[in-house]
Amino acid sequence: MPRPTETKAWQALASEAARMREVHLRDLFADDPGRSERYKATAAGLTLDYSRHRVDDATLGRLVDLARAMEVEAWRDRMYAGARINTSENRAVLHVALRDLDDAFGCAVDGVAVHGEVRTVLAQMRAFSEAVRTGAWAGHTGKPISDVVNIGIGGSDLGPRMVCTALAPHHDGPRTHFVSNVDGQAITEVLEAVDPETTLFVIASKTFTTQETLTNAHSARDWFLASGADDAAIARHFVAMSTNTEAVAAFGIDPENMFRFWDWVGGRYSLWSAIGLPIVLALGMDRYEALLRGAHAMDRHFLETPLDQNLPVLMALLGAWYNNFLDFSTHAVIPYDHRLRLLPSFLQQLDMESNGKRVTRDGEPVAWATGPVVWGGVGTDAQHAFFQLLHQGTQVTPVDFIVAETPAHGLASHHRILRANCEAQAEALWRGREAPQGEPHRAFGGNRPSSLLSFERLDAQTLGALVAAYEHKVFVQGVLWDVNSFDQWGVELGKAMAGALLEKGAG
Amino acid sequence: MPRPTETKAWQALASEAARMREVHLRDLFADDPGRSERYKATAAGLTLDYSRHRVDDATLGRLVDLARAMEVEAWRDRMYAGARINTSENRAVLHVALRDLDDAFGCAVDGVAVHGEVRTVLAQMRAFSEAVRTGAWAGHTGKPISDVVNIGIGGSDLGPRMVCTALAPHHDGPRTHFVSNVDGQAITEVLEAVDPETTLFVIASKTFTTQETLTNAHSARDWFLASGADDAAIARHFVAMSTNTEAVAAFGIDPENMFRFWDWVGGRYSLWSAIGLPIVLALGMDRYEALLRGAHAMDRHFLETPLDQNLPVLMALLGAWYNNFLDFSTHAVIPYDHRLRLLPSFLQQLDMESNGKRVTRDGEPVAWATGPVVWGGVGTDAQHAFFQLLHQGTQVTPVDFIVAETPAHGLASHHRILRANCEAQAEALWRGREAPQGEPHRAFGGNRPSSLLSFERLDAQTLGALVAAYEHKVFVQGVLWDVNSFDQWGVELGKAMAGALLEKGAG
Repeated sequence: MPRPTETKAWQALASEAARMREVHLRDLFADDPGRSERYKATAAGLTLDYSRHRVDDATLGRLVDLARAMEVEAWRDRMYAGARINTSENRAVLHVALRDLDDAFGCAVDGVAVHGEVRTVLAQMRAFSEAVRTGAWAGHTGKPISDVVNIGIGGSDLGPRMVCTALAPHHDGPRTHFVSNVDGQAITEVLEAVDPETTLFVIASKTFTTQETLTNAHSARDWFLASGADDAAIARHFVAMSTNTEAVAAFGIDPENMFRFWDWVGGRYSLWSAIGLPIVLALGMDRYEALLRGAHAMDRHFLETPLDQNLPVLMALLGAWYNNFLDFSTHAVIPYDHRLRLLPSFLQQLDMESNGKRVTRDGEPVAWATGPVVWGGVGTDAQHAFFQLLHQGTQVTPVDFIVAETPAHGLASHHRILRANCEAQAEALWRGREAPQGEPHRAFGGNRPSSLLSFERLDAQTLGALVAAYEHKVFVQGVLWDVNSFDQWGVELGKAMAGALLEKGAG
Repeated sequence: MPRPTETKAWQALASEAARMREVHLRDLFADDPGRSERYKATAAGLTLDYSRHRVDDATLGRLVDLARAMEVEAWRDRMYAGARINTSENRAVLHVALRDLDDAFGCAVDGVAVHGEVRTVLAQMRAFSEAVRTGAWAGHTGKPISDVVNIGIGGSDLGPRMVCTALAPHHDGPRTHFVSNVDGQAITEVLEAVDPETTLFVIASKTFTTQETLTNAHSARDWFLASGADDAAIARHFVAMSTNTEAVAAFGIDPENMFRFWDWVGGRYSLWSAIGLPIVLALGMDRYEALLRGAHAMDRHFLETPLDQNLPVLMALLGAWYNNFLDFSTHAVIPYDHRLRLLPSFLQQLDMESNGKRVTRDGEPVAWATGPVVWGGVGTDAQHAFFQLLHQGTQVTPVDFIVAETPAHGLASHHRILRANCEAQAEALWRGREAPQGEPHRAFGGNRPSSLLSFERLDAQTLGALVAAYEHKVFVQGVLWDVNSFDQWGVELGKAMAGALLEKGAG
């Protein structure tokens, strides 16, 4: 692999940056009024409007050149083909197989097809969730399950939690609760709100050794047994998503109710696997499959569409443009949608854990910026919180605005106001305004870039496509930066040091 | 005022930065093992350990020189004295008066003391909250109030919401809900969960014209009337924090139940004013007064303590050091406390709305970095989300860790693990680690700075002190950067453009 900075495209982009630093978005719109129509990409029900970016056709051409030089298409094809592209852990990366319900891609690892195993676990999830949702699966005193408590952290928490919140209007199963933090306050607050006779605990830990998850799981079991239930009842109230049969059984869970996944499913890509079980319990298997199908539609788009019209590729290239060439080192995600309020936190993990890296795939130190700081919030709330800095701060943050055309609720006037605000903010950021005479604090420099991602309505299918678009964006950026986006060695040292402190009896 | 870059201290700090760029925290600890004991500041029950910062005595001395050169003490004294330091709006800035229960500071605006008015509103809040909490104030069908819905946005939402979440273990009043977003999904979800006969709506808008808040308030009133209540019942179920008597009365609220505040209370400093009413309803007036007393203790510390031992001043100087001299343009806040999970969002507003500015107090463009991007999350969750980038990313983010010695729950083993993780992360960030042979992805460069803010337990008093510390930190940074930290003209343009779009019937 070439180092990105040694490619011709990188050099050309450095020149582009020198040119573009002197250009205002007002000039770009004046010179090319058609750009608002032309700079659009559509995929799987999503539309990306990228006209408010500090690029023109020449810049975009050089960005696509960079994608070619770094072999984005070849790496993408290797991922879909099940190659072990997570080299530091010698693993394939096949979240696309999890949502390939019809086996269109024929994913395989070392020649062994994965589709059959995926279907088997999906069938297990369907059967179990239907039993719980219909009441056929009851608690140990015969009462139906009213509450599900997911105990997991990181990828075993953020994805399912975000999806359940995003699709709350479609929630028709037991109430769901999420406990992730080892801070005892988290499990305490949830246990105060649920009834041991009607609560199902869903323990998500691949190894069944994750410190936070097992600490919380044991406290939940203690609480359950303290209610008067006997050991045999544990298997009615605890199930696991794991691969460690022995530990799961030792905990008291029936291995029949252990939902498996595979080493080619990374934690931050695991909502599409058995880790999605709380989603299925809340929303039903049909909606979960719609989520998978939405993601799959984006997977096809990403696989089949030329780079210059490829929605996640464009998102990735624009991000690299700002991060590497205009030195904007943070990226804000701002859904104008109350249901997507957890999306920024979810994307923090997806993006920063994937690309917050300092060595190349070959282990050489990078000499270019890798992953940005990803942050954000929900509109319109964020307008009353941090938008001051977006408009008038000394650093520029590119923004992703996200909005649905049609809401799930019936308050049409609210949605009209919501959408007008979203549109107005994107406009104000690029356009700016001169100050009235004598009031320099009222000047807006403008020239601040944003994307607008929109769709007809937020349902399971659209949400699947949206999340998959970000996954592929992050993947493409990892290729551009020549890093392994699928490991996370950066969490190793703190974990080891915490372990040492606890052994010493400190802390 | 001198421009900060023209002070001798700024020049000296530029030289310090050149020196410090070559120094590793491992060297600083080796050269001065006493620094972990010496680099501590205490105030109002909080301890700031700032030993893990890339500074030594010389750097700290130059930073204090900068504070003197920019006249931090004089500006502070002007603020406490009620001078109109918010020049673009010609307002005093007196949140310190709101928590000065014994009138120790004798705050006045244009010679008129404010203490009496503050006490009057506090007495009104006490009387009203006690009536609601005891059931003396009942709904229109005679049932006691079970749920309070706060409708407000920005400062009228983030502060009360954060405090109610932080002090949840002490919650002994009606359930509280917060609706801020104009997205109709937000009010829809809350209205589905409450009963019109037992719900009290608390409408927070100084002008009673805030678009989001009034839109939500009208939808809440429609819902209430649709339940069969008549117009006269509105006054039993709606109260307001506002200054617009006419609009409040027109809405149907009894002006007796309008809780006032003053133009010297900025939105992001308003949780200490009538805007704190939902806190009082949830926790009781005695706890709210403890919150005020905690903040007041920090106000005294900030007023009376020499700069080089002044906790918020030190926080401010370290932030400026990284932002202006080492070019670290973001700042992360990471409480190891589930109860403080909303603190990062609260601090985003406090910090970014205050100091995300591009002109000086005199209206000259700044030629130095002002406010950083503030972001964060809660430990240990964040370890499984974005810590990868903190440890191994290409940009450095200084971190504030926050932790209590003693939890509110009884799960001692959880708290031991929580604290060990917090300590270990701070340690891992500065110390780093060499890679094992042949595994360069396992190397940690270290030299990544953090503060540790700790206290015995998180109660109302400590929380008050903690928030006040950040308020004063932000104030000091505004002085260092010569900006007006108390206006927010940056939100004006988007608002105007949204209004224009709505008039055109678009959106």
